[in-house]
Amino acid sequence: MKFTVNRNLFLENLNNVMRAISSRTTIPILSGIKLDLSDDELVLTGSNTDISIEIKLPMSEDLTVESTGSIVLPARFFSEIVKKLPGKTFSFEVKESFQTQIKSENSEFTINGLDANNYPRLPEIGSASTFEISGKTLREIINETGFAVATQESRPVLTGVRFIFATDSIKAVATDSHRLSQRAIELKQGPKTKADLIIPGKNLTELARIIGETDPQVTVNSGENQVLFTIGNISFYSRLLEGTYPDTDRLLPTESTTTVKFDLADLSHALDRASLLTHAGRNNVVKLTLDADNQQVKLQGNSPEIGNVEEEIAFKDLSGQNLEISFNPDYLQAALRASVTEEIIMKFTQPLRPFTVLPGKDNVDFVQLITPVRTF
Amino acid sequence: MKFTVNRNLFLENLNNVMRAISSRTTIPILSGIKLDLSDDELVLTGSNTDISIEIKLPMSEDLTVESTGSIVLPARFFSEIVKKLPGKTFSFEVKESFQTQIKSENSEFTINGLDANNYPRLPEIGSASTFEISGKTLREIINETGFAVATQESRPVLTGVRFIFATDSIKAVATDSHRLSQRAIELKQGPKTKADLIIPGKNLTELARIIGETDPQVTVNSGENQVLFTIGNISFYSRLLEGTYPDTDRLLPTESTTTVKFDLADLSHALDRASLLTHAGRNNVVKLTLDADNQQVKLQGNSPEIGNVEEEIAFKDLSGQNLEISFNPDYLQAALRASVTEEIIMKFTQPLRPFTVLPGKDNVDFVQLITPVRTF
Repeated sequence: MKFTVNRNLFLENLNNVMRAISSRTTIPILSGIKLDLSDDELVLTGSNTDISIEIKLPMSEDLTVESTGSIVLPARFFSEIVKKLPGKTFSFEVKESFQTQIKSENSEFTINGLDANNYPRLPEIGSASTFEISGKTLREIINETGFAVATQESRPVLTGVRFIFATDSIKAVATDSHRLSQRAIELKQGPKTKADLIIPGKNLTELARIIGETDPQVTVNSGENQVLFTIGNISFYSRLLEGTYPDTDRLLPTESTTTVKFDLADLSHALDRASLLTHAGRNNVVKLTLDADNQQVKLQGNSPEIGNVEEEIAFKDLSGQNLEISFNPDYLQAALRASVTEEIIMKFTQPLRPFTVLPGKDNVDFVQLITPVRTF
Repeated sequence: MKFTVNRNLFLENLNNVMRAISSRTTIPILSGIKLDLSDDELVLTGSNTDISIEIKLPMSEDLTVESTGSIVLPARFFSEIVKKLPGKTFSFEVKESFQTQIKSENSEFTINGLDANNYPRLPEIGSASTFEISGKTLREIINETGFAVATQESRPVLTGVRFIFATDSIKAVATDSHRLSQRAIELKQGPKTKADLIIPGKNLTELARIIGETDPQVTVNSGENQVLFTIGNISFYSRLLEGTYPDTDRLLPTESTTTVKFDLADLSHALDRASLLTHAGRNNVVKLTLDADNQQVKLQGNSPEIGNVEEEIAFKDLSGQNLEISFNPDYLQAALRASVTEEIIMKFTQPLRPFTVLPGKDNVDFVQLITPVRTF
């Protein structure tokens, strides 16, 4: 196995494969990256069993193949070495007993490799259910819901985001049972048959990073236990979560008794200040007072040891019944960070019933739900 | 005690005082910042017993005094609060039982303060031995030597940099017994009588940060156990280390048998690559081969588990006897980082004797010494 490659091109792709590789793996060979070289292309593969990433580099003037073969190299060291090589290109050659020589200008590394035959095989997914989606849409819907998944494994199904891909729409919902985020976006050309998938939240975070800031076309291909996202020359495999996702539609309140509209930045800054103190105490809870009679909104936070903070928040509209409600400021702050409009509307019923955070625009189908905290 | 102040002006000074304050202190009141308000000025004080910083803010249009007094506030919270206040100014008022109210626009914090009478007093230093020095010179000499102090406390005196301030020069030396850095700079107007001070290395790091990137005039005022650096409105007190500093002059070799000159960047990049592997192994050692006969310089590093690296390094001049020498690459890398010239000269005697790293220019009085490692 021997090739010469442009270092920057290789590094960019290597960095993407590295997203699937964990240094704390219980399967030693998975701390490595697999390189498969055929006459036409070089395939880089990384996996942590939860995510697998495969990237194909076609033969070109930037990649010259001398002889084919396969090898697994320690991923972290290999990527650090490639990062620090002196030249614009480097040559790569597997010698006896998997010893791999990497040369660039006057620098010559010899790295102990592993037999690629011992590397696990990637899942196989039929092409039965395939459709395309804009990368920008997919990244946005991930950023708008992924943060709300459960981080604890007590109910595994809640560590994932539930995606319902339909002919004309994509709907995603995530909840850790304290808060919920649900976003729906219209699709021009969704899948022919509905796909209902629960994808682990942390896998989606990596997928969003790989999509990046541009808007590539993404092909979605769902199998029984795995889903494959194809973005250009990158194949991103994610495990699917099994089990029944709770019926979240029934949790969303259909009416409200108090409604208030804020400029997102005003509310967010006030929460920031209140959290300074609530984070220091044992109870991370702020109190929001909505006084519709006197048209006043007040936010309070306190820590018995440090002190307290109280402030009036500017608002756009306040109507309905007066209300005092207490909640974890971090949940509201996360909801605001995910919001896509400059104004948001909060709708309340009772002090101990969940409230919703909605976009300031009618045409955005995005609802976030937060459960208050009992403070008495 | 009551005043109103420009928030940015206050924050900038607060951040400097914070450098002296540790949250992990065994004396609870020292986790606080002291504020003393007189009719003319507001004085901010922070201390960790090793360093004390006092900053005076004079009354101005940016600082209006309503009533004088003193208070100690929890430093970390207070600075985070000031950072996040909404307005350009804030008002500060001490109420009953040290409760302190901080108001800015619609935001109102109440913080539990402590009695300023319980705050320790700053050291007193007579003005007997006072002189001025350029802040830029002081910062440079700190950066060129401070990194070489011992971090372990087994010989406390080595955790400091020894400064000898004389009428026409300033000389600083630091060593952790594995490597040494000594820098001398000419002074136009040094102290009338020689001052020989051992200043803790970590205190100097903070001093260099406070000096910043400009070139303020610094007044040095040395007492028996303390030294005071005055930079504009900032007074920086550092404890001095007691004990006798070793006679380092006798360690510096006076002759050499092999000399090589490098472009600093070439050598540094090669060391970077070699360290990738040596950091992974148990022995963090590289081998440098100087072949004067064949005019070749080679650097090797290896880790039995990962692999090895070998490279030829470009050089400018190589003369004297052939030599193979092994050493910790981190010491040489640190020496290069501290270097002030684009080329450096290394001078060697024997494989087991310390070697020196010198500037590529004659007029820079800077010598770094590194002890090699026995590898057989």
